[in-house]
Amino acid sequence: MENKGFFYSFLVLFFLGFQGCVDGRLLADSKPDRDAAAAYARWLVSQNSWGILNTISIELEGSPFGNVVSFSDGLPGKSTGVPYFYLTTLDPTARNALKDQRSSLTISEYPLRTCGNADPESPVCAKITLTGKLVLLEANSKEAEFAQTALFTKHPEMKVWPKGHDFRIFKLLIEDIFMINWFGGPKPLTVDQYLKYQMNRFAIDK
Amino acid sequence: MENKGFFYSFLVLFFLGFQGCVDGRLLADSKPDRDAAAAYARWLVSQNSWGILNTISIELEGSPFGNVVSFSDGLPGKSTGVPYFYLTTLDPTARNALKDQRSSLTISEYPLRTCGNADPESPVCAKITLTGKLVLLEANSKEAEFAQTALFTKHPEMKVWPKGHDFRIFKLLIEDIFMINWFGGPKPLTVDQYLKYQMNRFAIDK
Repeated sequence: MENKGFFYSFLVLFFLGFQGCVDGRLLADSKPDRDAAAAYARWLVSQNSWGILNTISIELEGSPFGNVVSFSDGLPGKSTGVPYFYLTTLDPTARNALKDQRSSLTISEYPLRTCGNADPESPVCAKITLTGKLVLLEANSKEAEFAQTALFTKHPEMKVWPKGHDFRIFKLLIEDIFMINWFGGPKPLTVDQYLKYQMNRFAIDK
Repeated sequence: MENKGFFYSFLVLFFLGFQGCVDGRLLADSKPDRDAAAAYARWLVSQNSWGILNTISIELEGSPFGNVVSFSDGLPGKSTGVPYFYLTTLDPTARNALKDQRSSLTISEYPLRTCGNADPESPVCAKITLTGKLVLLEANSKEAEFAQTALFTKHPEMKVWPKGHDFRIFKLLIEDIFMINWFGGPKPLTVDQYLKYQMNRFAIDK
């Protein structure tokens, strides 16, 4: 009987092991159909917690400069599709954006581990690039308060990041969406279709 | 005895489950000391299989455009630090680079799952941005042959990607390195120090 207990303990631990692969978060039961472009894009953005934020480099002769950042697009179950960021001006990204707002955020499905054995560059593993303007939010505005709550809820560690590091809240004003989630090239998807899509059919989308 | 067999089977499966988290690859036993900047940077690049490749967008008014790509910096155990790519001109990234070579490749330690519970934006989870020129290699040149072998070894799926899609081999000529792998800002690291670093102390760095 004792051995049986061990057996079941390991069965549980085994599956917990795999669950840990998904960034410690439960994913929505299944990803949207690949032909539902707005649903897929919103799922991809809401399920991910980080991406690469691109700006035009001041220091490197106008080169495109990508930086690893965390983001949130809303509270769990209430995502908006708009990515918010908590950036320090000690980093080039925030400084670049304050000079030239042109920016993009790129997110891969690969780290979610929901594309089977596909190569990260394969169109079977979805990728999305939201291009637009990286805008500083006015401190203490309603939107900044909302964004801070969304960010700190998804990234609790941010609450204790040093106040002296001049962290500020930015958002990406999306002007173009490039998403590939299957063969056949980028999926046609307007910003309006993306933003207006209702996420409520996903129980968990923090 | 049979139960014991089950017990050990699950013990093995349990650890295999966790191992699967590391992109199906075995990582080098331990990451380099965080103060060994060149070693750390080369480790980060060689251990990762994908990143975000950034170019200046032709179609989106010069915006910085990030794209999810796979790369390789050499054969297993013989990494060079130079990232090679297999890009189709059906994608904006290759087309952008053929017009304006300014580019950067951004890689995060986060998907390697070697930064504990740190947030993806935390300096405890390393990030590197290699900035330079994205250069098309001459077809059938020795370097192109070397790069193709390195790419196809790390990304076997590439071998069967459609020939009609005009895949070409590019490399990033690195001109600047921005790496954060701990508190205290970017680590001082020259391109020369990075490229000349000998990786042979890592047994596995494919």
